[in-house]
Order: sequence, then C-alpha cells, then structure tokens
Amino acid sequence: MQIQEIISKKRHGGVLSDEEIAFFIKEYVKGNIKDYQASSLCMAICCMGMNSHETSALTSFMMHSGDVVDLSKIQGIKVDKHSTGGVGDKTSLVLGPLVASTGVKLAKMSGRGLGFTGGTLDKMESIPGMRINLSEEEFFDQVSKIGMAIIGQTGNLVPADKKLYALRDVTGTVDSIPLIASSIMSKKLASGSDAILLDVKFGSGAFMKTLEEAKELAQAMVNIGKSLSRDTRAILTDMSQPLGFAVGNILEVKEAINTLKGHGPSDFVELCLEAGSIMLMQAKLVSSKEEGRAILEEKLASGKAYLKFLEFIKAQGGDISYIEEPSKFAVANHIYEVKAENEGYVHEIKAIDIGLSAMHLGAGRAKKEDSIDYTAGIILNKKVGNYVKKGEVLATIHTNKEHFEEEIKAVHDAFIILKEKPIIYPIIRDIVF
Amino acid sequence: MQIQEIISKKRHGGVLSDEEIAFFIKEYVKGNIKDYQASSLCMAICCMGMNSHETSALTSFMMHSGDVVDLSKIQGIKVDKHSTGGVGDKTSLVLGPLVASTGVKLAKMSGRGLGFTGGTLDKMESIPGMRINLSEEEFFDQVSKIGMAIIGQTGNLVPADKKLYALRDVTGTVDSIPLIASSIMSKKLASGSDAILLDVKFGSGAFMKTLEEAKELAQAMVNIGKSLSRDTRAILTDMSQPLGFAVGNILEVKEAINTLKGHGPSDFVELCLEAGSIMLMQAKLVSSKEEGRAILEEKLASGKAYLKFLEFIKAQGGDISYIEEPSKFAVANHIYEVKAENEGYVHEIKAIDIGLSAMHLGAGRAKKEDSIDYTAGIILNKKVGNYVKKGEVLATIHTNKEHFEEEIKAVHDAFIILKEKPIIYPIIRDIVF
Repeated sequence: MQIQEIISKKRHGGVLSDEEIAFFIKEYVKGNIKDYQASSLCMAICCMGMNSHETSALTSFMMHSGDVVDLSKIQGIKVDKHSTGGVGDKTSLVLGPLVASTGVKLAKMSGRGLGFTGGTLDKMESIPGMRINLSEEEFFDQVSKIGMAIIGQTGNLVPADKKLYALRDVTGTVDSIPLIASSIMSKKLASGSDAILLDVKFGSGAFMKTLEEAKELAQAMVNIGKSLSRDTRAILTDMSQPLGFAVGNILEVKEAINTLKGHGPSDFVELCLEAGSIMLMQAKLVSSKEEGRAILEEKLASGKAYLKFLEFIKAQGGDISYIEEPSKFAVANHIYEVKAENEGYVHEIKAIDIGLSAMHLGAGRAKKEDSIDYTAGIILNKKVGNYVKKGEVLATIHTNKEHFEEEIKAVHDAFIILKEKPIIYPIIRDIVF
Repeated sequence: MQIQEIISKKRHGGVLSDEEIAFFIKEYVKGNIKDYQASSLCMAICCMGMNSHETSALTSFMMHSGDVVDLSKIQGIKVDKHSTGGVGDKTSLVLGPLVASTGVKLAKMSGRGLGFTGGTLDKMESIPGMRINLSEEEFFDQVSKIGMAIIGQTGNLVPADKKLYALRDVTGTVDSIPLIASSIMSKKLASGSDAILLDVKFGSGAFMKTLEEAKELAQAMVNIGKSLSRDTRAILTDMSQPLGFAVGNILEVKEAINTLKGHGPSDFVELCLEAGSIMLMQAKLVSSKEEGRAILEEKLASGKAYLKFLEFIKAQGGDISYIEEPSKFAVANHIYEVKAENEGYVHEIKAIDIGLSAMHLGAGRAKKEDSIDYTAGIILNKKVGNYVKKGEVLATIHTNKEHFEEEIKAVHDAFIILKEKPIIYPIIRDIVF
C-alpha cells in the first residue's frame, strides 16, 4: 500500500477503505508516513470530507493506536461528559458531583486544551492541594468508592491523536468535521466509559460558529459512538454569551460552589440539570428527563450534590477549607468595574472577546508554556436580556497586570446593547442522539 | 503573515493575494515554512484550484526564487520548446536542428524528468562524447555561433520548483493544473527564451489522459506566458500510440537521424513540421504556418537540417562518426519479434504499456538512482491504422535482460486489434495561443 495513492484517492473524492485508514494511522504513528504526507491527507479530508463509515473507522483505529482503559472493574454503567469548550464553562465541576450524588458513576479523563481561560484541569488545580494525576488504581478506587473522579489523561492514550492534532494545528487542517469528531471521540472511547454525553457549543465563543455546524459535528460524534456501541448523545448549547457570570479559574470554582449550594446563575443551573438528567437516562437510573430532573433538583436543594463535591475534592487531595470558606482563595490585586456608556437591553456578550480579554488578564494560556494566574478573570454583572442604564456596571475585571486599558475597552465593547428587547433562547438549543 | 491563515484561506476557496503567494514561496525556500505546511497548501490548491492571476503570480515568484538566465547577449529572438513528455518523444533532437537550420535561435535547457524511457538529455548522452553540461559562456557562444544548444539545467534555476516538485511527488499533490503549469512555466521562463512552444501530450502514455484536460493545462500555461510577456503557444498532440516507431534511447537517436535524412515516420515528421512552422512564426521569420512549413520541408529535403544536427552534436562534443554511420551504435544482446495472434486493424497501441515495458527492458529509470541501458527499447513494426495478419511482427524488443516474458506479453497486449477500420486523427489535435 502506498500513502500517495491513498492521498490521491481522497483528493479525488474517493471513499477510503478500512485497510487504507488503518495503514495511515499505524504507519503514521510508527513514523513511516511523514508529517508532510499526513498533512496532505488531512487537507484532502478537509476539502473532500469523509462519510460516516470512514469517520468511525478513523476514530476506531486512532482509539486503538495506544492504550484503551478498561473500566469493567468498576461496577455499574460509567458515564462521561465532554464539552467542545466555551467561555466560562465550569460545567464538569458541578455536573460531576451532581450526577455522582445519585449513585451514577462518572469516570472522566480530561485533556489539557488550549482554551482561552483554562480547562477543567486548570480550574481544579486552582484549589490548593488538588491532584489531577492519579494512578490507574487510585482512579478506579476513587470512582468505585465515591462515584466520581476527574483526572488528566494518563499513559499512552491515543498517540495518533496527539501527533495528528499537533500537526493539524500548524497546517490549517483543524477545521474539518470528520477530523474534529474522530479526535474527540477517539479519546473519549479510549477512556472506557459506557455512555458519553457531548456538550457541543456554538456561537462566537465556541469553535463552531453556528447551530448548523455544531449540529453537524454533534451528529458525526453521536454516529461514531453508536457505531462503536457506546450510548452517545449530544446537547447543543448557546455560546452567544459566556456561561454563568464567572470567567477565570478561581472565579469559576467559586461560582461552582455557589451553584452546588443552590445559588447558581440560571443559565448554568439549567444546563447542569438538563445535561445531568440525560446522563441519568444514559445510566438507566431513570426513563425520562423529567424524572431525572426531579432527582437532581432534590440533590441540589438537599445539599447532597455539594457534599459529593467536598468528598471529590478531598479524595483528590484538595484542601476543602477553601471550599467551605471561599474567601480564603487568593484575590487579584486589581478589581475594576467596567461601566455602560449607553442605555438599553443586552443582546449579546461576545464570548470570544470576553474569553480573549480574560486570557490577556492572565486567566489563560496563549501558548502551551504560558503559566496561568488563577485569580485573574472577569465577572459579568449583566447577562443577555438585562436592561442596563448608563453608568451601571457591566462586568468586573480581576487581574494582577498593571496595564489593562485595552481589556477594559474590549470587555465594554463585547456587550451589544440595543433599544429593543432581545429574544431569549434556552441555553440548550437541541439534543442529538 | 501566518502560513496557517494562508492555507486556511485557500482551503475555504479564497483567492490568495500576490503578497501571500510571495510569502509562501520565499519562506518555503528559506525553510521557515515547513514541508508539512507546504504539502497542506499544495493539497488545498489541488482541491480548490487557483485562478489565472494566482497561477501567474505563483509562477513568477517561483521563477524569481533563483537565477534567471539573461539571453539578451545572443542576437535575435530566442525560441524554446517544451514537451510534457510522451513515449517515443525524440522531437527536440529533430526540431532543434530543423528550426536552427533556418537561422532561428534555439536555446534549450532540459530537465532530467523521470519519464518511462529517458528524456532528451538521456538520448543525447547515448551518443558517445556528448556533453550536456556546458558553462553559461559555452552555451551562449554555441547558440550565437551555430544557432542551437540543448543542455541540462544549470546553476540555481528555480529552487522553489525543485523543492516543491520533490514534495508533491510524495504527497499526492502532483495532479493539479495550476501546480503543473507553474512548475513547467517557471523553469521555461527562468531559462530566458523570448518565445516558448509547448507540446502538451494527451492519451494513455501522457500525464493528461484526455484532450480536454490537456487543453486546460495548455491554456493555463499559455496564459502564464502571456501575462509575463512571452509569446507562448501550445500544440495538443495525440499519445494514443507512441510517437514514431522507436522507443528507447539509441533506437530513438537512430530514428531522429533517419528523420533528418528525410526518412522519418509520418506522424513524427508531421509533428516536427507543424511545431517548427509555429516556432518560425514566433521568431517572426514567417507570417503564416504554410510559409514556415515550405521553408522547413526544403531544409529537410536539402539535407540542411541534417547538417545542422551534425554541427550541434559536434559542438557539444559528440562523436559524429556514430551519426554518419549509425551501425556503430551498440546493439542489445536480445532482439525478439512480438507477433500478432489475431488479424485486424490496429486501433490503439497503449503508449503507457509500451513505455512501462521499455522501462522494464532497461530503457528508463523507475527510480532516480537507476542507470539506463541505452541499447534497450522497443521498435513498433505496426502503427494505428495498419492491417495486421496473424503471425505478422507487431513490435521488436531490444534488451540485455535475460528474462522478458512479461514484457513480450505486455507489448503484445498493448496492440488493440479490431475487425473494423479505425478513425485516424491527425497527430496535432489543437493549437492554443
């Protein structure tokens, strides 16, 4: 088999056979197929696409390019959740304990993405003492004992994706539904859970800019999961404004604590309850979303979800005195209120601009090597639909940087304020399964 | 400027600016843009195309990536000729002296292609003593003095193409009209001639399989030439059978000698007269093809073209005793007649199969490092349109290999013999200018 012929076949719109896809992944990981050949094939896939069988085959061969975690030692149905990444997305920190408090097992391995404002692992590490690198045994034990764990990816999980993703990042080949779907799903499938809930974000702050694109990606991933016999469902969630009020690591952890105590922002609470109730269905604990939702509302109201959070933080070495007394967390030197210059309704809060500003304030990494200032970030004081008077506070900047004039302007301009009332959409716009 | 953004723009069907194309070529030659990025961009160009302005800009920046030959020291209009490569294509060896015998200057730099059966340079080197590496001064002097020279590419001519072509060859990105056109034309333009005649082959033995594809490539190259103010024209010639009777280096040199002496195969003579008369028009020696053809017919009939050939061979160090007495050339150990098993008219002689067989018999290189057996090759005893009886000789194999059973079968099967008379097309099917 010759890689040139495989590339040429795809370039002319051909359908690759399982053998050809297997050859590509195997020989690329071995180094026999060169980066310049892999990037050419990725571009041909970007331009010509892959059908659903090809995409599943690609995912499966990528998944098996390294270790595959066997969670069968843990009793019951294990569920996992993955978000394609958004601004202010602290969902795992709440959804994990919420679902685990019902007895459903959540075994989550999280990737260290290059998001604007840190991923779940960064948010966890902003809690003093918290460990994200558990051994496989510790991971299994913790999920069995307290029902949940969130750790970094261990061992040699999907080396094909590590290599391909780094290549795609510098060759203009990120933007392809089959390549994105196989990258995400190969890692989720290799992590071993029985059921997967995907949170596919759309809007300015998300990778997918429109609902249609997000739906296409969601459908591709659900198809892959099904073809490999995993219960896979996806929710499509709106990123036309950041999720909740808080953006930035410690700020988001505090918001997660508040949410678990029953005082969360309504969009974020809604997302957690809806996503959670689907996960309870996937775990076969309930047979309808309504039933699931009732259970989860009770877990929030009774404080059981919050107690599960404490248990989870403690199990992974975190200092729970910070959780019990959030004022112990460090606070940024500069706290600056960004005020409205015009009056009207908030129609949109451009999530990408809030995300980038938070990054520049210290909350995220521009490059892999950058370090994160856990205290930095932005608190939204207004959300879409709110009426704002001139001079009212739109958002509050938290930073240790000495100069942040540009970020003040960017945060201000991220708020689109108009005279007429906006239409308010629910946070979850569609479900794919 | 970021190469990822340029790649991404093309991947989405965008039109690249001159600055973006210049950046790509310049930084790729310098090594700042990596092979895996260049191959991704080449694939995006394969899939999405380039408009005629982009293609000309690409050609121009490639052309200027290294030395550009200045032929202005040589008096008069300098013409050049380039063939996209076919089986049995010894045209330059006849067309060069034919045109030069009229006083028109031909300054040709030839590339060492990876054709089935050796390129013009290989055919020249099969004549003992022949030098293809002249210094620039020797080259200029020879063209000035005797009116023609054919040499290998000198110095640092179009390094961008050397690098890109080697990359395209292994990344499935050869097959793109803008990339092929810019590769050929950048070298022709850098070689410095005022006028260029392109011989674009189509059919099984050519890179372009159909007349339509060949016409598209020809038009793209003519457009490039025009946009850079060179008189560029193209003929589209049929490769549904090998050109002339001889395939293989010494065998083709002998056929060239016969042709210059007035005994050439009719298809090959026709090609030389037509192509030559266009070149005389390009050199402004004549104002119509008919006028040019009359002059060239006289040069052949009077032996002046043959004398120019002797002058050319001698000037580049070749031993003209071989030309004057072709029986001095070495002959292969095995000469084997392939006979017809069926009766009927020859409809097609699959040039690709004849070319590949000749290569396997020793006449060409499968890999760059392979050496060529100048004596090896195939003589066609029948051409398209001939009537063949069972047992008549179709072709004669020349080889020093001990085993060539497969080639006997392949050569036999390359002849498509049918009951009804075939339609005979002229060798030149169209002209683009």
